[in-house]
Amino acid sequence: MERPITFLSDYGYADEFAGVCRAVIARIAPESPVIDLTHGVAPRDVVGGALMLADALPHAPAGVHLAVVDPGVGSERRAIAVRVADEDRVLVGPDNGLLWPALEALGGAVEAVDLAASPFRLEPLSATFHGRDLFAPVAARLAGGATLAEAGESLAPDSLARLELPLARVEADRVVAEVLHLDRFGNATLSVHSEQLEGGPLRLGQALAIEIAGSPSAATFARTFAEVPEGAAVVYEDSSRRLALAVNAGSAAEALGLRAGDEVVLRPSDAGVEQRGRSPRVRGD
Amino acid sequence: MERPITFLSDYGYADEFAGVCRAVIARIAPESPVIDLTHGVAPRDVVGGALMLADALPHAPAGVHLAVVDPGVGSERRAIAVRVADEDRVLVGPDNGLLWPALEALGGAVEAVDLAASPFRLEPLSATFHGRDLFAPVAARLAGGATLAEAGESLAPDSLARLELPLARVEADRVVAEVLHLDRFGNATLSVHSEQLEGGPLRLGQALAIEIAGSPSAATFARTFAEVPEGAAVVYEDSSRRLALAVNAGSAAEALGLRAGDEVVLRPSDAGVEQRGRSPRVRGD
Amino acid sequence: MERPITFLSDYGYADEFAGVCRAVIARIAPESPVIDLTHGVAPRDVVGGALMLADALPHAPAGVHLAVVDPGVGSERRAIAVRVADEDRVLVGPDNGLLWPALEALGGAVEAVDLAASPFRLEPLSATFHGRDLFAPVAARLAGGATLAEAGESLAPDSLARLELPLARVEADRVVAEVLHLDRFGNATLSVHSEQLEGGPLRLGQALAIEIAGSPSAATFARTFAEVPEGAAVVYEDSSRRLALAVNAGSAAEALGLRAGDEVVLRPSDAGVEQRGRSPRVRGD
Repeated sequence: MERPITFLSDYGYADEFAGVCRAVIARIAPESPVIDLTHGVAPRDVVGGALMLADALPHAPAGVHLAVVDPGVGSERRAIAVRVADEDRVLVGPDNGLLWPALEALGGAVEAVDLAASPFRLEPLSATFHGRDLFAPVAARLAGGATLAEAGESLAPDSLARLELPLARVEADRVVAEVLHLDRFGNATLSVHSEQLEGGPLRLGQALAIEIAGSPSAATFARTFAEVPEGAAVVYEDSSRRLALAVNAGSAAEALGLRAGDEVVLRPSDAGVEQRGRSPRVRGD
Repeated sequence: MERPITFLSDYGYADEFAGVCRAVIARIAPESPVIDLTHGVAPRDVVGGALMLADALPHAPAGVHLAVVDPGVGSERRAIAVRVADEDRVLVGPDNGLLWPALEALGGAVEAVDLAASPFRLEPLSATFHGRDLFAPVAARLAGGATLAEAGESLAPDSLARLELPLARVEADRVVAEVLHLDRFGNATLSVHSEQLEGGPLRLGQALAIEIAGSPSAATFARTFAEVPEGAAVVYEDSSRRLALAVNAGSAAEALGLRAGDEVVLRPSDAGVEQRGRSPRVRGD
Repeated sequence: MERPITFLSDYGYADEFAGVCRAVIARIAPESPVIDLTHGVAPRDVVGGALMLADALPHAPAGVHLAVVDPGVGSERRAIAVRVADEDRVLVGPDNGLLWPALEALGGAVEAVDLAASPFRLEPLSATFHGRDLFAPVAARLAGGATLAEAGESLAPDSLARLELPLARVEADRVVAEVLHLDRFGNATLSVHSEQLEGGPLRLGQALAIEIAGSPSAATFARTFAEVPEGAAVVYEDSSRRLALAVNAGSAAEALGLRAGDEVVLRPSDAGVEQRGRSPRVRGD
């Protein structure tokens, strides 16, 4: 019985890259279901891809988890397959930090191999498309029952490239966060885990004074969009258990001029902060 | 034997949302094939999603039909599963009208349940991602053989939210329609069902005088694009049996400045309408 | 045992077109796995689709290969199914050149049929969506074991529409190529097959003087992106064994103002060409 394969990449949808990888998998492991998580990671955005992968994998069936966001393809960055503690899952991809948050979320790396000279790779190995020639065939063979030891050369799990996602600073009267990601709806994921909120200054239901890259604005800390009027900004715990900033029935990215990496400071607005610009405004106002 | 699941949403392709739902389904119902109809519905566009769903489902195998365009997620809008008369199909999604035209196209609702307290939902239920936590797991369990009665609490089918798509007015010398949808090719679906044309003023092969949001233009009522010169406008019966407006080898949306919701008036051009602007022009000319 | 079906089109992701075709296939051939190569071919771009198809199919499992980029749908262009020499593969699509490079890559056409009156088509046949009504059901029936003779009327393989991709001119001191395609990363595929380089003026490791649509620039002929500094231009053999032009950690399309069809002239830069504009520049500088 072949294991399922999940697949995430920055290959996009305009080209045949992801499709060719799926074709390679279908040729080697025709019985393995392939679940595309997304191929819409922004080009070369290792951090964005790592975040999506870590959020998605706990919901996926245990199997082989292929992920390719690989700006250093063909360079000396390692290509790896890693087994984690949880459910014998195996992650396959470049060793550039992309896999790291997911490895952490799945109990940590237990076994790892370097795929550079994998007997499963396709020949000739292209210098720029390891998704097709290396990662996909290795994932397919692992899904079909091959062991990590057969796939590559053993390497120390603690030598893997790490990627620490930024984490907000929770202070007595404010939370200093960063925009991690903007999604299709214009919602901004912030670098605040819900666990960080315990004992902090923010309370559900509160009016918040926020500063985005230095500009003041306002929002309500609510459970969901619909609890604020249309067009109003809302801070809420999103489905990844992080705080997020949205505009009900609109795009916070557009209305508030948000960009990935922006600093966002959140305070209870009764904390004496001067309140200008209570409604969403376009950056530059 | 698990039933197939079709899946349509406005989750887009840049994020992992649709992929995570597929992952949840694969975990619960690994044998159910999932057929993605599209995840490219415009964000929060319930009407656009409803139209695509109603057009697509009659072509899909009978099974469970998951659809999520859900701007009111977490509010008091109901989450529902509905069985229709045709082939025992079950539709799953928010009760905001999204499912309504498809229910109508499939013989009408026969049985419905409210999923708010479904035993199949994932815990903790997030406030903003019911696709992952409620709709996908319910769809998967239904595909695996669970009954509607097991999935939620019975509700009266005639209490479901309705969505009536706009329908053109056919008069003695003209048809007054609306642009329902613009597709990738820039073709505009109009609110005219081919059945409405019987006895009306339009005939295949005719030159037409058209007005788009008040501006005059011209087109030919033909069977397909290629029957008019490249760059010329054509009105034709599209694959959903509605009239559509296109430009051969080009984009009607661009050439004619069309937007969803625009009023489009169609007349036989020998009806005495003054003819200015016979060729496509950019809005604002 | 049903054969796999690969599927490529210009239907895009915003609409339900590709999903409806998959639905039709699932209804007729529920056991056939469908491998989406891409639906992101630019609208009506027969040449781009042909290039992707020819590059992808050799990596795909043998089966039925459905491809639809069909600006002439409903006109007199033929609809065809073609069997090739390699592995009994069958290609299905419009006879407008889209299939031609793939047929060549797979050993050439051995048997072909005209699908216009195929008993497998859906009725009523729409005039504008042959993907749904003709190509998908024919592909599904062929995957389920039907023969070409059952699918349509025999036609002479040498009557099929041909599409010759442009090929670079290799001269003593330069290579005169064309941009065939720009991908999601902004990399430009050039019309230079690696086989053409033997005996020509270009050597791996060389500094190159390039002219793009007449404007001078510079690049290095390397094995992969990472061999040049970030922001620098690199010419390399891509995964389709053609030369490509990229910018490390950036978009060559943006940095060099490239467009499909641009002429690109490549020379060893020690060949005495005057060197202006060594770094990427925006077209129009």
